[in-house]
Amino acid sequence: MPTPDPRPLAGVVVVDLTRVLAGPYCTLVLANLGARVVKVERPDGGDDARHIGPFVNGTSLYFAALNHSKESIALDLKREADRVVFDRLLEAADVLVENFRPGTMERLGYGWDAVHTRFPRLVYAAASGFGHTGPLAPRPAFDLVVQAMGGIMSMTGHPGGPPARVGVSIGDMVAGLYLAIGIQAALARRRDTGTAAKVDVAMFDCQLALLENALTTHLVTGHVPGPLGTRHPNIAPFQAFAGSDGKRFVVCAGHDNLFRDFSAAIGRPDLPDDPRFLTADARRTNAEALTAELDAVLGTRPAAAWLEVLERARVPCAPINTVAEAVRHPQAAARHMVVEVADPRIGTLFVAGNPVKLSGVSEASTRRPPPALDGDRSAILDWLNAR
Amino acid sequence: MPTPDPRPLAGVVVVDLTRVLAGPYCTLVLANLGARVVKVERPDGGDDARHIGPFVNGTSLYFAALNHSKESIALDLKREADRVVFDRLLEAADVLVENFRPGTMERLGYGWDAVHTRFPRLVYAAASGFGHTGPLAPRPAFDLVVQAMGGIMSMTGHPGGPPARVGVSIGDMVAGLYLAIGIQAALARRRDTGTAAKVDVAMFDCQLALLENALTTHLVTGHVPGPLGTRHPNIAPFQAFAGSDGKRFVVCAGHDNLFRDFSAAIGRPDLPDDPRFLTADARRTNAEALTAELDAVLGTRPAAAWLEVLERARVPCAPINTVAEAVRHPQAAARHMVVEVADPRIGTLFVAGNPVKLSGVSEASTRRPPPALDGDRSAILDWLNAR
Repeated sequence: MPTPDPRPLAGVVVVDLTRVLAGPYCTLVLANLGARVVKVERPDGGDDARHIGPFVNGTSLYFAALNHSKESIALDLKREADRVVFDRLLEAADVLVENFRPGTMERLGYGWDAVHTRFPRLVYAAASGFGHTGPLAPRPAFDLVVQAMGGIMSMTGHPGGPPARVGVSIGDMVAGLYLAIGIQAALARRRDTGTAAKVDVAMFDCQLALLENALTTHLVTGHVPGPLGTRHPNIAPFQAFAGSDGKRFVVCAGHDNLFRDFSAAIGRPDLPDDPRFLTADARRTNAEALTAELDAVLGTRPAAAWLEVLERARVPCAPINTVAEAVRHPQAAARHMVVEVADPRIGTLFVAGNPVKLSGVSEASTRRPPPALDGDRSAILDWLNAR
Repeated sequence: MPTPDPRPLAGVVVVDLTRVLAGPYCTLVLANLGARVVKVERPDGGDDARHIGPFVNGTSLYFAALNHSKESIALDLKREADRVVFDRLLEAADVLVENFRPGTMERLGYGWDAVHTRFPRLVYAAASGFGHTGPLAPRPAFDLVVQAMGGIMSMTGHPGGPPARVGVSIGDMVAGLYLAIGIQAALARRRDTGTAAKVDVAMFDCQLALLENALTTHLVTGHVPGPLGTRHPNIAPFQAFAGSDGKRFVVCAGHDNLFRDFSAAIGRPDLPDDPRFLTADARRTNAEALTAELDAVLGTRPAAAWLEVLERARVPCAPINTVAEAVRHPQAAARHMVVEVADPRIGTLFVAGNPVKLSGVSEASTRRPPPALDGDRSAILDWLNAR
């Protein structure tokens, strides 16, 4: 008898209509936890991410990074024969995920009300730019739109300089994570009550939920935060410094004890007794003066020398790694965070591992390669026929 | 008879030993979904976040933003009498969450093995800088350390300039979201199998899981991404432009159809037929030339005028909002993303709403204020005694 799959979402079937990023990132999280994810793609080209470069042997690496561990069937939801197959998939599924603009699913006849009536056990999960309610609901959005509108870009970049985009698509990915949380919550409620729910996650809402204390501080005190380069708005020292070789490294020593250890380690044991830097709150309000003092000291030796000194003193610090350095760090290997996949088209493919480590679930050493468009049709139809 | 609480995690009890950000952000997500979160704090000062400014009437806004909707009891886990109370809490709880450095809980006698033996139904969830395994496991980390080590800072900022920190603490918050996902997964598996699990989430791992295609593209092609200002690495045009008034706005028009609409709207209908910009992939590889063409056009009128033109043409675009503008957007109000709380110490407090919208769960119009240190002791003890 085969051992049961210990992964927590084993047995959960997800029908995935999503494209590009927020939705596919969500369903990747679910797949990593053991869910069976069936991508339902447009016959003419499929998921738009298949057409985002760079390509290897005609296959998008962008698509591959997000869609390994999933299956694909191509269906045209405007064709009757394909709608029959889609209905059978919904009948078999626990979750339907989509990230169309609000209203699209209703026009196709698969809005929440229609789907819930026909498939009362099916959780319906939607990610969109602005959500399914409110004045901006119909509006299209992409990652950069919500990064810009939600305030995070205004806080990212260097003082006096232009705002910067966060270098990865957190507008999409954080919405994908909140959607995964909402789907799990809806599945839990379904277990308790027998009733499914609609989950409606907006990328814009998620940006506001990431503002942490900036939202609260602004609305209570009126303070409008701007870009601080590498500094933290509330804690100091908590920023990057340049060594004498121009290489940059970061130091986090805001707590009293850490600040004392840090100051001693760099040969300035007097700093914690300076009235400007006596308490965490004093350091926060005098962060510029503190930066000037520290720049003067830390500019005298190369970055690597300081990192050695600080690590020995157990002061949290780090080099600013390139992606090449980050993914090759021994810690990434030890945590199975880079996974090799033998892909029939790309050859050797590498994807990110699963950051949710659970006792009793061993790390899979590889992944199912990203599916060809419609590549799993016959297996999916066989499975539906066998149910 | 009272109506049962429709929130999906109603009835779930979380014992929360976490401090500052990654852990408290996770338990805030759980509280927003209906879990009862009991913060167990050090008697001498409690959660470090209570001491991070700014303060109003001596109360930290940083703490308030993250800890509303939770209860507090102060316990010294080195005192026998307090350990007895803590044990009773664990007996009553579904989940224990901690974000100490690995090894700390073992030294207190509450490591996973000990806890799992005594409380086999208790899910044990840990967030840490580098996780509980691997060579860096014992190392302290803060948000900035993992933003630096994980590669995201190297991709954030303007070309040729120094790297920038993402303006909010995504190193912490994304780990908090993955931990919430892991906790829900462990609760689902417990329902299925009766057995609890340990969830081990590392901030560093989560940074790697956010690299999206940068990880895959680097390891397959060798390309090392650098900062691109406001540009997207794979899609163009997808960036900020400055109007004639110097104000900046963003445009996302990478898809063929959108690029055609955009080009027509700005009076350059010739651009989509230019061989350099004919396909999405051509625009990606010639992004700099495209930027030069677009800067010349878009610099001729004020930002607001362009936004009006582009909105009419249904091209995704947005102003770069300050936090003040973002939180006052009518969409934020329509989605209940800013919630007013009457706080006995601060007065009127505002916190972020819940981005997980579920059908059948109405939006709470306010929240329980952040707890005073040990402020819920008697209610918690009464509840334990009544069980």
